Amino acid sequence: MRLREIGEFGLIGRISSRVADGAGVRIGIGDDAAATEPTPGRWLLVTSDMLLEGIHFDLAFTDPYRLGRKSLAVNLSDVAAMGGEPRHFLLSLAVPTGVTVEFLDRFTEGMLDLAREHGVTLIGGDTCRSSNGLVISVTLHGEQVPELVVRRGGARPGDHVFVTGTVGDSALGLELLRRGERRGWAVDRHLDPTPRVRAGLALAGARLPSAMIDVSDGLAADLGHILDLSGVGARLKLDLLPLSPSFRELAPQMTPNPSLLSLTGGEDYELLFTVPADRSEEVAPLLVETGCAATLIGEITDGRGLAVVGPDGREIPVTCGGYNHFAVA
Amino acid sequence: MRLREIGEFGLIGRISSRVADGAGVRIGIGDDAAATEPTPGRWLLVTSDMLLEGIHFDLAFTDPYRLGRKSLAVNLSDVAAMGGEPRHFLLSLAVPTGVTVEFLDRFTEGMLDLAREHGVTLIGGDTCRSSNGLVISVTLHGEQVPELVVRRGGARPGDHVFVTGTVGDSALGLELLRRGERRGWAVDRHLDPTPRVRAGLALAGARLPSAMIDVSDGLAADLGHILDLSGVGARLKLDLLPLSPSFRELAPQMTPNPSLLSLTGGEDYELLFTVPADRSEEVAPLLVETGCAATLIGEITDGRGLAVVGPDGREIPVTCGGYNHFAVA
Repeated sequence: MRLREIGEFGLIGRISSRVADGAGVRIGIGDDAAATEPTPGRWLLVTSDMLLEGIHFDLAFTDPYRLGRKSLAVNLSDVAAMGGEPRHFLLSLAVPTGVTVEFLDRFTEGMLDLAREHGVTLIGGDTCRSSNGLVISVTLHGEQVPELVVRRGGARPGDHVFVTGTVGDSALGLELLRRGERRGWAVDRHLDPTPRVRAGLALAGARLPSAMIDVSDGLAADLGHILDLSGVGARLKLDLLPLSPSFRELAPQMTPNPSLLSLTGGEDYELLFTVPADRSEEVAPLLVETGCAATLIGEITDGRGLAVVGPDGREIPVTCGGYNHFAVA
Repeated sequence: MRLREIGEFGLIGRISSRVADGAGVRIGIGDDAAATEPTPGRWLLVTSDMLLEGIHFDLAFTDPYRLGRKSLAVNLSDVAAMGGEPRHFLLSLAVPTGVTVEFLDRFTEGMLDLAREHGVTLIGGDTCRSSNGLVISVTLHGEQVPELVVRRGGARPGDHVFVTGTVGDSALGLELLRRGERRGWAVDRHLDPTPRVRAGLALAGARLPSAMIDVSDGLAADLGHILDLSGVGARLKLDLLPLSPSFRELAPQMTPNPSLLSLTGGEDYELLFTVPADRSEEVAPLLVETGCAATLIGEITDGRGLAVVGPDGREIPVTCGGYNHFAVA
């Protein structure tokens, strides 16, 4: 069944019928605006990400279910990086008329399944027609008491640098997809990343991180944001970067420089954070129950810029420059 | 200068350098998420609208300054229709690489000028490249104490139906633009609509409206939403509809049925609301200082559906069906 047969209000009805009541929601889908009741004493955390077909995703690579999950996951990851608790979100969709209702049902199912896993509720958004590919825009609200919110600018010389999970998998997965692969760990990491919401909350709750960001542009670029805003430098040891067994096996077949891929590959959606050295040992036990470990990969220096030290002790030149969305491919 | 020369971070920097500090903003542009401090005792009102080039706007018709204003205005109108006070917003932009920096500067200027007029602050968003036209997604936050929030579902039989300003101008303006006209009242109303924020706040503050919505899909369709959600009907008198002098002059040259255009034409962004009959006389004096009048156009009935009565006393068949974004043109 094609979308034009059910129309805009049919689509909204199909989505809203699957949305359960959520805590704090006073007016949900169906009025001029949604209304929520903020928790007294907490700040509202807000983030928004837009995903375009042909730029951020390729329908030849992903399926609608995982696309729905990822569209919400990238926003959950931003709230996690602030140490926040995600609460409510809005979904705006521009849909080509030829898209099937089944596609949108699966997309919604994926998104709402991930929402349920994190206790967040869809409260509104917008739908319209697109003449040029699917456009997905999600705005997510989270909350946190002011004193636990973690920013990017608080890293201090001597702090230890940690990253959760493993890095480079998503970039490797994308390269594998381009070469025709459709399965496996790295591909899954690219198409269905795991936002580290529980880890972010646990770290913030213990007031451990002096600064935190999620790895979306790539480890080096995102660490660069922390360094710029904190006015500090960092020294990383390349052989400390946490790499998955799949990455160790497959990356050398894909690129002559796998280390560089793990440093610059984007979209891992891991948490990158700094911790005062004297509290560094608290990280591991704190994360045990969150289902993801963190690895110490270097330390903050009082210089400027990022220094990456190779296994031979020599410094490797790395640029901190983030992914430029407007560069011509 | 082309966008690719300044890059994503250059664009973000250019926008954020123009944003002044705003009340309630704790973390603005530049971290993983923005943070605001909700006003105790108030609900958060949230609305999101996405505008696509080729669907919602035509760059042959509009200029970037007015496009920036309208992208925010449509969201301000939604918060106005809840009786809310707009506070903060996020802007997500997908930009074709060929777009000039000057275009984006003017777009930002228009948006931020309207923001200033209403005391709202840009706090975040997203930017990326588009391979198929400009995409604009705005999410706006407003606030209001729970007892003053106005919903769509509260209309009761006997209530009077009002609409602010004049209707049909925007649809007329679009038709004039299509015929090559670039100036005049109706064209301005289409390209730079006035969100009725002050009127919405004044009405809500006096607890006058039993139901309220903004006219985006067309008067008949939007009244239809109030009727559906309130479980009531309505009778409108066609010759009571407020029409501008421009509409009265030009609409008959454009269409054999100008009345139908005023009933079904969308995007006027006026407030359509119902008021208990015994308080109907309070509307006019209340709105004097808001700069827009409201006109009594009919009443709520205990039937179902919308009846429109012509000048001869006979009923005119009108469908309440809203604009179907997925219908094939």
